Amino acid sequence: MADTPPPEMIVRQASPANLEFPFHTLSERLTPPGMFYVRSHFPVPQLDAAEWRLEVGGLTEQPLCLSLADLEAMTPRTLTATLECAGNSRSFLRPKVEGVAWELGAVSTAEWTGVPLAAVLERAGVLPGAVEVVLCGADRGCLEEPAKTPGVIAYERSLPLGKAQNDVLLVYAMNGQPLTPQHGFPVRAIVPGWYGMASVKWLTGIYVTNTPFQGFFQTLDYSYWQHRGPLSPQMTPLSVMRVKAQIARPAPGETLAAGQPYIITGAAWTGEAEITRVEVSTDGGLHWAEAELTDPAESHVWRRWRFAWQTPSTPGKATLLARATDSAGCTQPTQHAPGQGKYMITFPLPIAVRVE
Amino acid sequence: MADTPPPEMIVRQASPANLEFPFHTLSERLTPPGMFYVRSHFPVPQLDAAEWRLEVGGLTEQPLCLSLADLEAMTPRTLTATLECAGNSRSFLRPKVEGVAWELGAVSTAEWTGVPLAAVLERAGVLPGAVEVVLCGADRGCLEEPAKTPGVIAYERSLPLGKAQNDVLLVYAMNGQPLTPQHGFPVRAIVPGWYGMASVKWLTGIYVTNTPFQGFFQTLDYSYWQHRGPLSPQMTPLSVMRVKAQIARPAPGETLAAGQPYIITGAAWTGEAEITRVEVSTDGGLHWAEAELTDPAESHVWRRWRFAWQTPSTPGKATLLARATDSAGCTQPTQHAPGQGKYMITFPLPIAVRVE
Repeated sequence: MADTPPPEMIVRQASPANLEFPFHTLSERLTPPGMFYVRSHFPVPQLDAAEWRLEVGGLTEQPLCLSLADLEAMTPRTLTATLECAGNSRSFLRPKVEGVAWELGAVSTAEWTGVPLAAVLERAGVLPGAVEVVLCGADRGCLEEPAKTPGVIAYERSLPLGKAQNDVLLVYAMNGQPLTPQHGFPVRAIVPGWYGMASVKWLTGIYVTNTPFQGFFQTLDYSYWQHRGPLSPQMTPLSVMRVKAQIARPAPGETLAAGQPYIITGAAWTGEAEITRVEVSTDGGLHWAEAELTDPAESHVWRRWRFAWQTPSTPGKATLLARATDSAGCTQPTQHAPGQGKYMITFPLPIAVRVE
Repeated sequence: MADTPPPEMIVRQASPANLEFPFHTLSERLTPPGMFYVRSHFPVPQLDAAEWRLEVGGLTEQPLCLSLADLEAMTPRTLTATLECAGNSRSFLRPKVEGVAWELGAVSTAEWTGVPLAAVLERAGVLPGAVEVVLCGADRGCLEEPAKTPGVIAYERSLPLGKAQNDVLLVYAMNGQPLTPQHGFPVRAIVPGWYGMASVKWLTGIYVTNTPFQGFFQTLDYSYWQHRGPLSPQMTPLSVMRVKAQIARPAPGETLAAGQPYIITGAAWTGEAEITRVEVSTDGGLHWAEAELTDPAESHVWRRWRFAWQTPSTPGKATLLARATDSAGCTQPTQHAPGQGKYMITFPLPIAVRVE
């Protein structure tokens, strides 16, 4: 039951599958079927829809054990959400860092259908003292650095109770079709506005806790160093996506005709706000001009944009940049903060092209 | 003002100084002056006693700024405590792990004089919602793995509020003398029953928080993987010392006379209980016999022991082991748990000797 990716997908790692959407092909608002990026930590668990169960427990009034039919009998909700891997654009970091060498395409958009996590939590009855909800995937295995990992672990990630009770969905359909195995069949979480690591695939457990969860993917992985108060930086789980624009066309290394009109296109997204502005620089960042936003503003969904450029009349190289601003007033930093390590790469990415 | 260690001290790392007490010289209950093991993460901060201040802040009614004279004017308290580095005996691990290659001597005992942290916290007035107390050392620097650390950090470590308000001392004297620079002059914490990393040296700050502190030495360093509930193991800060016995004499590799009486000696310690039994095996762990405890039971202090052995009459090799049990019923595990990584090495350590 292996997914065979379309040949256009960029294989960053064959096993487990880590596949990149070829971002220069961006044209529709929804990423085409089969082209949504794939991030896997372990082999795809082979789950049977009829036997699948979702166990809900921990700090609840009553534990639940829900079948897929149970979920499908609840009031469905559909939303469109962009997911970005927290390590997207990692290959632009200098010096190079460890991890999957994503370029531009560990970001995609789909329409998701499922039931609110809040409704499931309400049915279970969250007890006083609860602070987090751990989402447990069926994917598990042993990681490459045994000295730093505790042996076999499952993919587990937590959410603060407030987010879990707000807009998180437990989804069974993607663009109106059942999830494919690589995207979490039969049920995955979608955590709007958060980096992709929060949207746990192959969901089989929900566990309510009274202390912050400190599992591997919450601490050694998918975390960064954050200053809080007067103390030294603290290890903090990644959460909300930061504002970011990317250029789709021209692609890095593309050759353009000199002295011609060229439409630079791309998309921009952010976490808990809306994109309000995208600017483009065609001279490596000296001057910036505003791009046209071609999608309406919508929370948790990227907004495509275009910028009409007259390429230089003299042949040579050019470096194109884009940067976004959101309704919370956040814009992209000029440099990568070292405390973010191999994650949240949101400085304007230089796209080098040749004009001939 | 560099400390020159006595020549008997084993230098595991010259700079910063990491010096091991030659455990085979164990004779008195208190480790002799200058022979207490030294664990440093950064160069020794050169602090002036007259200018030194302890800042107390965070979730308190009123911030404090205390001088050494202020502390010395408070009711003093003296206690004896054994400190063990959480990585003591690391060189016995197979396969080898990173970190200072301690053998037996990253453990020592001293008499400490200072004021209860509880008294200082009471003066500052801990506010409702407080959960931890962060102890901040003046030692700081950049660590060897820049990709995993946030640049310059200070040595900071937290305690749950309950422990901080219980038996922790802020000490200015060790065995009746002012602290030496390497042991935290002018003031350090002593956290009885906890591994040494909690007893922050060169203490200059105390910060009360409403969330668990997640600094480097609480997460990437000095932590282990602990199973809690049905989830995968969670990163957990090291805290209470685990029960452990060590053989002082014979030393590893020592040659003994065949067919003679020999007194095997050593010490045993534990965290929040008392040592009740030490057993010795002279055949690599097949048979065990009870040793004689030569110190009275005292919380937080090691208990020396002796075992009369008749060495084999035929020359050859022998492997000696010791294991302790405490008043909480805990005894040493037969193997090192992988989730503990390079810390809490408490399986019975094999001491190989030759009989001739």
